[in-house]
Amino acid sequence: MDRPRPCVIIVGGGFAGLECARALAGVAVDIVLVDRQNHHCFQPLLYQVATAALSPADIAWPIRSILSRQDNLRVVMATVTSIDTTQQTLQADELTLHYDYLVLACGVTHAYFGHDEWSAAAPGLKTIENAREIRARFLSAFERAEIADDDAVRRKLLTFVVVGGGPTGVEMAGAMAEVAHETLKEDFRRIDPRMSRIILIEAGPRILPALPGNLSNYAKSVLQRMGVEVMEQTRVTNCTRDGVTLGDDKRIEASTIVWAAGVMASPAGQWIHAEHDRAGRIIVNPDLTVPDRPNVFVAGDLASVRGEQIPGIAPAAKQMGRYIGRVIAAKVKGQTRTDPFRYRHAGDLATIGRRAAVVKIGRIELTGFLAWLFWGVAHIYFLIGLRNRFVVAITWLWSWLTFRRGARLISADEQ
Amino acid sequence: MDRPRPCVIIVGGGFAGLECARALAGVAVDIVLVDRQNHHCFQPLLYQVATAALSPADIAWPIRSILSRQDNLRVVMATVTSIDTTQQTLQADELTLHYDYLVLACGVTHAYFGHDEWSAAAPGLKTIENAREIRARFLSAFERAEIADDDAVRRKLLTFVVVGGGPTGVEMAGAMAEVAHETLKEDFRRIDPRMSRIILIEAGPRILPALPGNLSNYAKSVLQRMGVEVMEQTRVTNCTRDGVTLGDDKRIEASTIVWAAGVMASPAGQWIHAEHDRAGRIIVNPDLTVPDRPNVFVAGDLASVRGEQIPGIAPAAKQMGRYIGRVIAAKVKGQTRTDPFRYRHAGDLATIGRRAAVVKIGRIELTGFLAWLFWGVAHIYFLIGLRNRFVVAITWLWSWLTFRRGARLISADEQ
Repeated sequence: MDRPRPCVIIVGGGFAGLECARALAGVAVDIVLVDRQNHHCFQPLLYQVATAALSPADIAWPIRSILSRQDNLRVVMATVTSIDTTQQTLQADELTLHYDYLVLACGVTHAYFGHDEWSAAAPGLKTIENAREIRARFLSAFERAEIADDDAVRRKLLTFVVVGGGPTGVEMAGAMAEVAHETLKEDFRRIDPRMSRIILIEAGPRILPALPGNLSNYAKSVLQRMGVEVMEQTRVTNCTRDGVTLGDDKRIEASTIVWAAGVMASPAGQWIHAEHDRAGRIIVNPDLTVPDRPNVFVAGDLASVRGEQIPGIAPAAKQMGRYIGRVIAAKVKGQTRTDPFRYRHAGDLATIGRRAAVVKIGRIELTGFLAWLFWGVAHIYFLIGLRNRFVVAITWLWSWLTFRRGARLISADEQ
Repeated sequence: MDRPRPCVIIVGGGFAGLECARALAGVAVDIVLVDRQNHHCFQPLLYQVATAALSPADIAWPIRSILSRQDNLRVVMATVTSIDTTQQTLQADELTLHYDYLVLACGVTHAYFGHDEWSAAAPGLKTIENAREIRARFLSAFERAEIADDDAVRRKLLTFVVVGGGPTGVEMAGAMAEVAHETLKEDFRRIDPRMSRIILIEAGPRILPALPGNLSNYAKSVLQRMGVEVMEQTRVTNCTRDGVTLGDDKRIEASTIVWAAGVMASPAGQWIHAEHDRAGRIIVNPDLTVPDRPNVFVAGDLASVRGEQIPGIAPAAKQMGRYIGRVIAAKVKGQTRTDPFRYRHAGDLATIGRRAAVVKIGRIELTGFLAWLFWGVAHIYFLIGLRNRFVVAITWLWSWLTFRRGARLISADEQ
């Protein structure tokens, strides 16, 4: 009788989880991919859903459809509640699943630096639901300003604050400025959307800290030309539904606040009682295994590799997922693979509205329209599914030509 | 000093309201269009959102964007709560608006024949939120069946009931069959989606009662070939989250029920204390005014014209809206227009999956692929916005070639 095939459980259908599953295609294992959502979400474009440029389905794809041809895998839509590393079992809703190898790739959510009470006031941007919520708040603010009688109320409604000057914050602020100053400019009668204030707040000395200083400066000047107020070295000390407090006492009244600063890992570290860093990321060995648990791997944003700083971006997650898949494949075949995971940094990029982007790949630095084109082509290339690529490309072309946005929906249950 | 321009308030941005607003373009009136949603929804294609073929934004468009070039109009997103026909004022959220002419075009929702308690079990299909809710239930049923251990539970999860054999019910059942039998067939491991039961229930003697009997029979046979069980002359007597009861005691266990039978008007009739029919539709004169209130008009599905049967379809709503706009324009110019509203019936059509449709226009009857093509071209033509037409056309072509569906999203807050 054949020995039963080893079971691999992958938790999370993001970039890391999908890439790990693919690397195990054709290997003699039985894979179960568990995710509480039915879809993989292309997070780098979430800000475009939040600013009404794309529809949720344009950047999301059913996980089981992506992997439907992979015979050694099944997808389970369920929420993991606990893991027993002694029994090697995982509990997801009512299911108990046994594993021989476990891959934790369930990512991060946004963190409020110990102020979880800010989350209702300032939603972050990690899921499709987040993006819909922000879209509804953003678009509703103009609607409510249009019928407001009080000047102060109207000013508050038309003030938009983005906290965090990384790529997500920069892209979000740029897109908001574009919507306010171009898309909506003729649609209202009593307000002029061009009077909106869009404020980008960064606690560190400059926005886009991962990029060289000259690119940060360039991005800042483009944002300012688009009408975004960029506040660097500014710390948010309070956040309510009515606005933010900066530093000791500066107050900005704002009805829409978007949180693009700080991440917190999923509770996976607690499930397996592993050592984790302050953000909850699990500290792993150079081969991405959890110390003392050689059959438990961690990939993507959830992993904090001992002695190394790996950015929380899609290419890093994919590389880790692929590496783990290959390690497991080697182990199943009785080989040992001892080379540690080595991260290859492809580059950094961020787009700023419809005009410009900043790109740094190796020693090459690009700015302006050429960088923007590069950014667009790269993102379409990495989208999943021919239809999505096509629809996104057409939608972008159409938006670019008309200044319009195709997904200006406010839904009642999103407010 | 000039006399102030007369104020026209239009309640509802559906087909009737939009068409009325357009007919008043360039006329010396001040129009306020009030809608509680920010978007116009193309209801004839809602079933495609509910069955994951299209995204909500593909069939919805911001009302203020549609009408942004019309200078004599402003759009207010607010919910009407009361109307005072003596003072000629309307209350919408905190706003009080005065009118000289009032046009009520706020449509209908689904009715449960006095059993409102069925609504949680069997959502209808009138809004984007309805469609998202049905999509989440429909797709989740397969996900839950995949992890169910009990045979009876699995059977219940894979039984889908559509109540009502009009065009919406027929289109919904056909699309559900297509998803179950084609789109999903390779995506699951423990269930075979092709084993799903899709049941279409019609209380009357035949489905598509507005069409000639031979077309009803054709539609029925196509549905049956697609695997839909068509039950005519069957009355639903109870509806719960676990299934439906038919007639005296026949029980069908089903986890997903869609309500496509019966409509009920918005409470507008009560706001103005007007005579209404059993479904809440306001009974109006042949010139679409409310008896004894010559400056209050009713258009679209909400209107019940005395002595005439006008179907609740988009072309009828548009004709009424246009007629009312012209009557008001004539009055403002000091002319009197006395010709009553006359409905011209353009035709009836319904599509059945990806193969066929039935069309009747005047004496012309079409079935099969030709009818399907006609249906597709007509619907794309009537969509608003070049981008939407393009994206819908491409999405349909892509779905048609690949059997896939682009919007298979289950969102947490939709369950």
